[in-house]
Amino acid sequence: MHGHTISMRLVPSTTSAMGIYSLRQLHLSRAKLKASSRTSALLSGFAMVAMVEVQFIDSCREGPEGKTETDECPVPQWLLVAFSLCTTLLVAVHLLALMISTCVLPHVEAVANITHVDSMASLRGTTATVSESPHITMHKYIEAAWTFSTVLGILLFLVEIGLLSWIKFLGYSKNAAIGSTVLLVPIVLLFTLFTFHFYWKLVAQKVEDADKTLQELEEQLRV
Amino acid sequence: MHGHTISMRLVPSTTSAMGIYSLRQLHLSRAKLKASSRTSALLSGFAMVAMVEVQFIDSCREGPEGKTETDECPVPQWLLVAFSLCTTLLVAVHLLALMISTCVLPHVEAVANITHVDSMASLRGTTATVSESPHITMHKYIEAAWTFSTVLGILLFLVEIGLLSWIKFLGYSKNAAIGSTVLLVPIVLLFTLFTFHFYWKLVAQKVEDADKTLQELEEQLRV
Amino acid sequence: MHGHTISMRLVPSTTSAMGIYSLRQLHLSRAKLKASSRTSALLSGFAMVAMVEVQFIDSCREGPEGKTETDECPVPQWLLVAFSLCTTLLVAVHLLALMISTCVLPHVEAVANITHVDSMASLRGTTATVSESPHITMHKYIEAAWTFSTVLGILLFLVEIGLLSWIKFLGYSKNAAIGSTVLLVPIVLLFTLFTFHFYWKLVAQKVEDADKTLQELEEQLRV
Amino acid sequence: MHGHTISMRLVPSTTSAMGIYSLRQLHLSRAKLKASSRTSALLSGFAMVAMVEVQFIDSCREGPEGKTETDECPVPQWLLVAFSLCTTLLVAVHLLALMISTCVLPHVEAVANITHVDSMASLRGTTATVSESPHITMHKYIEAAWTFSTVLGILLFLVEIGLLSWIKFLGYSKNAAIGSTVLLVPIVLLFTLFTFHFYWKLVAQKVEDADKTLQELEEQLRV
Amino acid sequence: MHGHTISMRLVPSTTSAMGIYSLRQLHLSRAKLKASSRTSALLSGFAMVAMVEVQFIDSCREGPEGKTETDECPVPQWLLVAFSLCTTLLVAVHLLALMISTCVLPHVEAVANITHVDSMASLRGTTATVSESPHITMHKYIEAAWTFSTVLGILLFLVEIGLLSWIKFLGYSKNAAIGSTVLLVPIVLLFTLFTFHFYWKLVAQKVEDADKTLQELEEQLRV
Amino acid sequence: MHGHTISMRLVPSTTSAMGIYSLRQLHLSRAKLKASSRTSALLSGFAMVAMVEVQFIDSCREGPEGKTETDECPVPQWLLVAFSLCTTLLVAVHLLALMISTCVLPHVEAVANITHVDSMASLRGTTATVSESPHITMHKYIEAAWTFSTVLGILLFLVEIGLLSWIKFLGYSKNAAIGSTVLLVPIVLLFTLFTFHFYWKLVAQKVEDADKTLQELEEQLRV
Repeated sequence: MHGHTISMRLVPSTTSAMGIYSLRQLHLSRAKLKASSRTSALLSGFAMVAMVEVQFIDSCREGPEGKTETDECPVPQWLLVAFSLCTTLLVAVHLLALMISTCVLPHVEAVANITHVDSMASLRGTTATVSESPHITMHKYIEAAWTFSTVLGILLFLVEIGLLSWIKFLGYSKNAAIGSTVLLVPIVLLFTLFTFHFYWKLVAQKVEDADKTLQELEEQLRV
Repeated sequence: MHGHTISMRLVPSTTSAMGIYSLRQLHLSRAKLKASSRTSALLSGFAMVAMVEVQFIDSCREGPEGKTETDECPVPQWLLVAFSLCTTLLVAVHLLALMISTCVLPHVEAVANITHVDSMASLRGTTATVSESPHITMHKYIEAAWTFSTVLGILLFLVEIGLLSWIKFLGYSKNAAIGSTVLLVPIVLLFTLFTFHFYWKLVAQKVEDADKTLQELEEQLRV
Repeated sequence: MHGHTISMRLVPSTTSAMGIYSLRQLHLSRAKLKASSRTSALLSGFAMVAMVEVQFIDSCREGPEGKTETDECPVPQWLLVAFSLCTTLLVAVHLLALMISTCVLPHVEAVANITHVDSMASLRGTTATVSESPHITMHKYIEAAWTFSTVLGILLFLVEIGLLSWIKFLGYSKNAAIGSTVLLVPIVLLFTLFTFHFYWKLVAQKVEDADKTLQELEEQLRV
Repeated sequence: MHGHTISMRLVPSTTSAMGIYSLRQLHLSRAKLKASSRTSALLSGFAMVAMVEVQFIDSCREGPEGKTETDECPVPQWLLVAFSLCTTLLVAVHLLALMISTCVLPHVEAVANITHVDSMASLRGTTATVSESPHITMHKYIEAAWTFSTVLGILLFLVEIGLLSWIKFLGYSKNAAIGSTVLLVPIVLLFTLFTFHFYWKLVAQKVEDADKTLQELEEQLRV
Repeated sequence: MHGHTISMRLVPSTTSAMGIYSLRQLHLSRAKLKASSRTSALLSGFAMVAMVEVQFIDSCREGPEGKTETDECPVPQWLLVAFSLCTTLLVAVHLLALMISTCVLPHVEAVANITHVDSMASLRGTTATVSESPHITMHKYIEAAWTFSTVLGILLFLVEIGLLSWIKFLGYSKNAAIGSTVLLVPIVLLFTLFTFHFYWKLVAQKVEDADKTLQELEEQLRV
Repeated sequence: MHGHTISMRLVPSTTSAMGIYSLRQLHLSRAKLKASSRTSALLSGFAMVAMVEVQFIDSCREGPEGKTETDECPVPQWLLVAFSLCTTLLVAVHLLALMISTCVLPHVEAVANITHVDSMASLRGTTATVSESPHITMHKYIEAAWTFSTVLGILLFLVEIGLLSWIKFLGYSKNAAIGSTVLLVPIVLLFTLFTFHFYWKLVAQKVEDADKTLQELEEQLRV
């Protein structure tokens, strides 16, 4: 009895290939939620400041008859509409990501903190805790927060930078605004390319991981 | 005597299903309070900056006879009243959440820190500490801070963004303000939907958790 | 001799009900000081920014004869006096809380860090360290910092928001300023109510805690 | 031989009263340096922002003949001189505190980090490391950083708030500036009182601590 | 059997030269990603604020005929174009670095956190986990984020500072703008030199490390 | 064999005087890099904000003939040149320090994290890891980052404050600018004095440390 207890402690349940894989998913979810909450707070913060602090040119103010004197205001109507839509969408996307990670993260952290204490405990206890963990049942939300915060959020942010440089420079130098937009096109392409390449690599690795886990399980069953 | 002491240490009280559940609630409360205090500080900070820094159009100033010249000022009275009410409510809701988490968090953290030391101690000691813990007696306050900070606070924040874009864009482009509002309607619906879905999932999981804990306790009693 | 040393390590001094209670108070003091220093830094920071950045209306400038032309300036004298007093008091209260926690926290942290090392040591050492700890001798200061930072500081902050919305909106819409004030009255009442309810609950729990500790000590003495 | 090694580990050198006292001083120095560096960064940051952002009234600009038209500018010369001196002194005091803690803290942290590893080692090693530690040889600098950051720095900051409210409000409402100053006088007194009381309590506790350490050493020598 | 288990724990798999080298690479990747995400957030934050807050001189506004009155506006067109391009590139480079580290860091952290638990486990488990780690398969991305954030990002930032001082000072003092540029030339050279020297040193050390690892492996095989 | 393994764990390699000294240097380097990166981020951040936000007086704008009307602009040309040079140098020095610590810190942290795991391993492994550590091969860079960030960076910052108060106050009160400069002269002297004293003390302690290490090594060799 005594020797059995000691060996349980030295070879904890997490050594089994299945346990490590499950624990790794838990830590991955936690790190993803933390990273997306940090990125969202940063980028939504700037979008808000840009909205409050940006100064429109006085000559663009609408007259009482609802029309601007077009010969004086260099900023066209559609630019203001696009800026307004982009800022609202940007803030909303990041707030949604922030809300999801604020909702889900405490549940994931509670399980991750328990696992530390638990890893010294018996085999059955551990697997039970991890399997009923929110990082599996709330998997869809975690991926949504992640996608909103990194992929959609950063792409929208690049568009916002482009629109902002039009609003900022249009009155002073049209070439500056055009140059900024020309530069942004390949950058947005690079972002999209990276996103797809990264996603493809991730799926490839997940398949490989599952293969390895299966092989290890087979080997363990043989031994 | 000697062997008994060692086994107590290797199989601490937290391995019992009841203990783990209680500990998990403790960590959940702590993570919730931390997350709501961080979110509240961020969002109330922006609401304050927006209130101090936003510039109203000069032509909207009230004359000595208490009336604005309506043909010059594009911002109607009710918009300013709504903005004032929304900002005050937003700041107050986040301050209330901040106050509650500042009050309750130290009590929860003190117990959580003790549990680490305590987990090496005897069975009776641990359960005593956790059961007299503030995360149960102050449960209502923790949920209130959580709801104020995430659900009510973020919804109010979206409304604030909508009002801000009206105040900011009304003098320049009515379409920009309308576009922003039209975009916000489905987003607010999405937020509400997510909130209810998340809440429903949480209740469902809680029921399932309680079932599992009961089953495990039954199995433990049989063995 | 050998067995005695091991049992001392496995059942450290902190398992005694008295030791845990004392340790819990130590961690509570530390968490309180940390929370009040964080809250004070945040709120005093905003109060300062509000003071430096707020723009008074030009027409309110005092003429050389020391009187303002009352038909042009909508902000009355008493409002500026109230704003000045409230900002000064708000900053001072938070600076006082910041100063106390900056002074007392290092002493509490030094003891808390020692306790970790100490908890593996002999029984006599631990209790000696904790009892001569600053969290007991400086108890009054910790409570003062706490009260200044949370109760007084947040109430003053709500008043500041009210005054700020008067200064900001008075020139544009009297109704907005009135609406904000009307909204603040029930909120301030809610804050006061929560404070008293929380305080009452805390005192009740302290009495209960003391009762339990006494009972446990009695049981320990019997065994 | 075997038993001797184990007992050394279970009863480390830090259990001796002298070792704990020395280690506590080390942690106290570290916490003090950290707290003073945080406070200094916060307060000097605000002083800088206040200096860059504050707007002087245009009518106070000096004419080419080096004299201001006194009937238009409400801010007297001595107020600007006092504000300039106070801001410079405030920033310098906090920068000095920041510099000292940036210089000394790494040396103290290196020793504190070593102590963790070291505490499992032999008796002789530990005491050697701690006694040659920078927290003793650089004791004067640590106290200087502490005093600069908390006592002098916060008092200067209160004076800065007073001066700022004079510069800000003088053109609009003399009573607001006077009210703020009248409020600051008892607050500065309260700060000074607290500082002296806290210092006196600290010295008293140090004497008591030294007495206790001596008594414990005597008791240990007897046993 | 019992003795075998204990020796496995005391001499974990990481003691083998290969394991330590692999683990060190893992921690290096994590630290690099963390550092580049922090630097990118800081520098992109400033670039954004500089873009939103910088004020162009009113006299430089383009007239309705698309031409500025050149005798009044001291800022030439190409300067605005260069500033616009540099800001866009700077923000995009840092956002790209931020996105890569937000994407890759969670995967690296999940493995690093597992390694702690795992290091108490069997030899085979550890090497399996580390070898299938993302810090090797995503090595190219980590180096890209690193290069974007530190090398390219800081060089672009120096150029931005130079352009900003031209835009800021050109209307007031041409010499100030020229002086700033003259000062920046040797600084940019120093940066480039440091980058190449550091890179060369790193490659040299990597070669040396590989040599040492080989030698140690040979020695281990002999023993 | 069994007893040998245990004694290796209980008396790790770091207990030897040489190992502790080496480990202490490692932690010192890490703490220095962290501190200098934090200080540099703070101070360069302010220097940037000061550059973007400072408002020059309109009357100082250069006319089309490249000359300012000297009877209206109180700020002389050399002051603007000095401010431009000082800001550029200040930002560059802190960016250089930031870049060095961003480059070197990950390498030092990777080794420091490994050491924790490694300290339970065999003697030979540890010394090998620490001796091939970047904190020795990159020693020159660490000291450079340190000096740039603390000594040069803070002295330049004090000069910047002096120049800023001239630019800010010159139009309003010459005495305020003179007073600020007069105050800065003894403060800069105090800084230089402290730097030299601290450096001298450090060298003295290093010599003493080396002596002690030699003595301990001699004693160990005798035993």
